[in-house]
Amino acid sequence: MTKNPWPVPEPQLTADVHPALAATARAAARAYQEARHLHTRAELREEVADGADGTPTMRVDAIVEFAIAEAAAHVGANLLSEEAGFVDNGSAATLVIDPVDGSANAATGVPLSCFAGALVIDTQPVEALTVWFDTGRAWSAKAGQPTSFRTSGRTRLKGASICMMRPKRGTEDAWMRLADAADRIRILCTTCLETMLVAEGAVDAFADPGSDTHRLMDLIAALVTVPAAGGALLDLHGRPLTFDLDLSRRWSGIAAATPALADELITTILG
Amino acid sequence: MTKNPWPVPEPQLTADVHPALAATARAAARAYQEARHLHTRAELREEVADGADGTPTMRVDAIVEFAIAEAAAHVGANLLSEEAGFVDNGSAATLVIDPVDGSANAATGVPLSCFAGALVIDTQPVEALTVWFDTGRAWSAKAGQPTSFRTSGRTRLKGASICMMRPKRGTEDAWMRLADAADRIRILCTTCLETMLVAEGAVDAFADPGSDTHRLMDLIAALVTVPAAGGALLDLHGRPLTFDLDLSRRWSGIAAATPALADELITTILG
Repeated sequence: MTKNPWPVPEPQLTADVHPALAATARAAARAYQEARHLHTRAELREEVADGADGTPTMRVDAIVEFAIAEAAAHVGANLLSEEAGFVDNGSAATLVIDPVDGSANAATGVPLSCFAGALVIDTQPVEALTVWFDTGRAWSAKAGQPTSFRTSGRTRLKGASICMMRPKRGTEDAWMRLADAADRIRILCTTCLETMLVAEGAVDAFADPGSDTHRLMDLIAALVTVPAAGGALLDLHGRPLTFDLDLSRRWSGIAAATPALADELITTILG
Repeated sequence: MTKNPWPVPEPQLTADVHPALAATARAAARAYQEARHLHTRAELREEVADGADGTPTMRVDAIVEFAIAEAAAHVGANLLSEEAGFVDNGSAATLVIDPVDGSANAATGVPLSCFAGALVIDTQPVEALTVWFDTGRAWSAKAGQPTSFRTSGRTRLKGASICMMRPKRGTEDAWMRLADAADRIRILCTTCLETMLVAEGAVDAFADPGSDTHRLMDLIAALVTVPAAGGALLDLHGRPLTFDLDLSRRWSGIAAATPALADELITTILG
């Protein structure tokens, strides 16, 4: 029953990050640091509630989301989050946020979890921010504006390094087909961080091979950031990734260095 | 063809780390930082030679190993390393080192790669050090002495979070059997870092389900560190993990929080 002894640094944010995203990301990092300081790994993993999205809420999620809700109220933005659902603070601006992406990693101390969020004006995502908690590395993007980091530019699956969701019941065949076709695979269990590795060109793609695990907050930061870095962010079955308040919607997200690579991933998964 | 813009910090070493291990780890981190500064991701991945262990040497491996060989000569220890093989500096002390564990990650910028090494006196590993390059986090251990960090203590596979090698041809069935039996799986593609996550209790186990990928330098740091943290480090087929200069030897390493969990992993893999 040990605690995680490693520090959570301040997010490394550039000056042009929207203040509402910056404030919530900083609040999330501070809350996660405090949570690791106060609670054992087992305590952080404990399920303490059922989230608004229908999945169990771990203590680490609850602690970080509470801090985010306070920060969102302070800046006067609405909040759409996986545990609390929609919190209406009477604004045209809504922060759509995954407080802790990779909750199981964050709880037990696998150093792969992040804050991910987007600022939505009315129904339009205009800016995104992802912060890797264990290093403070941050990736931000504004919709329709190119980022300084770029995807690898790879167009074919042969020779590709990809991240994948772990195989789930019913997707094993598609999973193994994709694993065979790619050169190297990884499973990091944190979609938001894995899609940022696609955006910065460290891996060529990320795929959920059909398990329909993703909610809007798992994909919305990538939806802004990956195309801004030259890549593509799609749903496996072509369902539109649009903002709404219904947290029961699910997608199988595909992030790829290029639209051509996304197409080949989809064809390979669908067999 | 981008470069990796993130810094490689100084290793966070405690005062009791053996000077020869400390010097080589620091040399490795500095060399990797410089390599990321000077070369694109594609250049770092390029295969520039065949290593003494029979596998291709990427540029990133060659650069870091060169720095390690200099440091080993400077402190007067022999070196056994995957690319150079055995370098006899006339000492009873030999540094057995994996200069860059997770070379493919290190080259392309997946932030999961590390230095891992052990100090061997005659044929006995007496101390080990592992340093995660992207954060400077370090795990050290002396043979037979308990470490401050501890494994999770888990004894059963049901409910376990484990890291695995990626499935390779011929091991797919064993791989999927293990993935089904565990609660959560990850593939980080860096054995030395994954075994340290077992040692500190972040995951319950790591397994190569029979691909015989591991060389001595992939496992020797874990061989000292994981038992010192309360866990077990074994070969799938019970082959002894002993020091010698023959780099053609291979193992399928199993690291687990407890001997009981290691046994269940082995039984599950062997079917």
